[in-house]
Amino acid sequence: MGRKLLRIALLGCGTVGGGVYEFVRDRQDMVISYVLSRRPRPELSCKVVSDFSVILSDPEVDVVVEAIGGMDPAYEYVRSALEAGKHVITANKLLIAAHYRELVELADKHHVTLRCSAAVGGGIPWLANLERTLEQEPITRISGIMNGTTNYILDRMHCSDAAFEEALLEAQHLGYAEADPSSDLNGGDIRRKLVISANIAFGCVLREEDIAVFGIESLRAEDIQACKKLGRVCKMIASARNLDGCVAAYIEPAFMNSQLHEAAVPLNFNLISLTGEHIGKQSFYGQGAGRYPTAYNVLQDCVDVRNGLQGFYTNKLEDRPVDNSSVVRPYYVRTERVDEWLQKRVVKILDCGVILKPVSVTEMHAWAKEHPCFFASLRD
Amino acid sequence: MGRKLLRIALLGCGTVGGGVYEFVRDRQDMVISYVLSRRPRPELSCKVVSDFSVILSDPEVDVVVEAIGGMDPAYEYVRSALEAGKHVITANKLLIAAHYRELVELADKHHVTLRCSAAVGGGIPWLANLERTLEQEPITRISGIMNGTTNYILDRMHCSDAAFEEALLEAQHLGYAEADPSSDLNGGDIRRKLVISANIAFGCVLREEDIAVFGIESLRAEDIQACKKLGRVCKMIASARNLDGCVAAYIEPAFMNSQLHEAAVPLNFNLISLTGEHIGKQSFYGQGAGRYPTAYNVLQDCVDVRNGLQGFYTNKLEDRPVDNSSVVRPYYVRTERVDEWLQKRVVKILDCGVILKPVSVTEMHAWAKEHPCFFASLRD
Repeated sequence: MGRKLLRIALLGCGTVGGGVYEFVRDRQDMVISYVLSRRPRPELSCKVVSDFSVILSDPEVDVVVEAIGGMDPAYEYVRSALEAGKHVITANKLLIAAHYRELVELADKHHVTLRCSAAVGGGIPWLANLERTLEQEPITRISGIMNGTTNYILDRMHCSDAAFEEALLEAQHLGYAEADPSSDLNGGDIRRKLVISANIAFGCVLREEDIAVFGIESLRAEDIQACKKLGRVCKMIASARNLDGCVAAYIEPAFMNSQLHEAAVPLNFNLISLTGEHIGKQSFYGQGAGRYPTAYNVLQDCVDVRNGLQGFYTNKLEDRPVDNSSVVRPYYVRTERVDEWLQKRVVKILDCGVILKPVSVTEMHAWAKEHPCFFASLRD
Repeated sequence: MGRKLLRIALLGCGTVGGGVYEFVRDRQDMVISYVLSRRPRPELSCKVVSDFSVILSDPEVDVVVEAIGGMDPAYEYVRSALEAGKHVITANKLLIAAHYRELVELADKHHVTLRCSAAVGGGIPWLANLERTLEQEPITRISGIMNGTTNYILDRMHCSDAAFEEALLEAQHLGYAEADPSSDLNGGDIRRKLVISANIAFGCVLREEDIAVFGIESLRAEDIQACKKLGRVCKMIASARNLDGCVAAYIEPAFMNSQLHEAAVPLNFNLISLTGEHIGKQSFYGQGAGRYPTAYNVLQDCVDVRNGLQGFYTNKLEDRPVDNSSVVRPYYVRTERVDEWLQKRVVKILDCGVILKPVSVTEMHAWAKEHPCFFASLRD
């Protein structure tokens, strides 16, 4: 294309970084100039440094690909790279979710590109398509399955009647779940992905901690049995709607009508949807994690930078409150003791658990905070 | 962005063209300079001409958006626009499928951009994502539901036990099927979409008539009953695989395992997937037709042209034969008379129809050409 070679400094060469390294090695239009690594990496054919300032001070480096993960030292590296006028590509959802406004503003100030396509949806071209759609019309809604670990566990429990612990162990053996799976199970991982997606989709800045989240730690095989008896499929769903002056955003298990697309997502796959006024609902499905799918999205960002794409996905940064009080749904609840609040709302008693008449997301999540339980919304 | 205003000549201002007109009217970065229309259009605020040569000779026109449909005069207009050095955007699958090589070469020769994103998948960002993926790795396979009319009919027959004729009438009333629905029902429409998709995905030029196709004209309510008894869902599936030296490409009804994604596609929606070596399977779901979804994809092409995107989705134009003999599947067949060929292959007799042991696509389609029947492959 006659464009100049893109020179990349790769921070971290583990699972994802290693995939990026392999992909770039096969290309003519970009090259890995440096790998930042604490230990020697004689197997790599590029310069390996342990001191980030070497990369920072090399004017030949066009783009810094951050594949270290975690907050420290990734945050400092990304900040200083942007300040040094280098483009930054990262798969780090923790970092982007926590410092969204600062990093977007920093990229803008220094006229460099910031991309994080692999931070949400792994190998699904989600953020790039969100950006494309925004070129044309406002997004009213986003939702979907954004975490492969919980989907794998739910899928196993549905298909084999496995106990929760058994399904989790299986996920760990397959490398789909971390040794400490808490941020997957409690929805923390999904919340970061939802805050990034909603911020871009709606041109706002949400506070991560404002987004209501209920995980699957308390899920039992009997809940899945109850779900199946209702002819439904239990999925972990993240949702955000752009409302007047606020955003509804929450994450919770949902008993999905089996005809819904989300119900058919197997194993550790992800499915994410956007809704626009004219285009209706568009969904994107694929591998939500893994070395190559994630590296694929990182490399798409590199290709976009090479093609001259500028800035971040959006430059709108409006502070918006989260308010889930207008979203109302029937819920399944299993708890030890049916208290007065529940009693008043029960419309059906199951072998295990009850079905409530429609209750707001705000109310349901608030009640669940105070009571040991498992709950899931019913969605059609 | 400091880019110059994109000046568009819109050929045809009907369903899709009218949608494009509305979308562009709301934008600052592009403008409709002309509408080509045989009749006066006093409601439009741009120049309306009935003589295409006026558009062709106006050097101010950057891009011609062809929304007339059909072969004549669209073919001549598109050719002459490319030859005059104007970018061309079209939703015309008939035209692109039939004159693929010539039009791609013409765009290349005159250094202009040719896009047809709305020709496949209506409002789904399918071809653009195919192109993005190709920036990184070869596509090994594409498949999916590419026709909303047949999906609507199949969905209605599944959900309401409607007869074929009843479901077709309903689709016509809703505007999902043409007065003459034959090219939807016989798979001709899908074949055009598959040839365009496969050509782009595999960098080849397939002959449309080489692609095996079996439609749903002979489908009866009893086939859907048989499908449901097998716990499956009947869908019209287009498939293409990149093989060694050839391409397998065919379109046929399929009894899908109900866990598959395609099984959950309701109404007139489409779902199209690609498979790459590293990224695995990615799927794209959305409205496959309709004024605004289709206009949306046309406008995405306009945005891409404004952003400086060049050429066609691919510039590889290798002639490739179609060979379906290596693709082997079990089939459901309903026919009046079980002949020797069938007899030898039957593994199960149903109330209506039989299940065959795995047979090649080539054999199955060849047999069906000679025998009144309905058939569907069984896919898991």
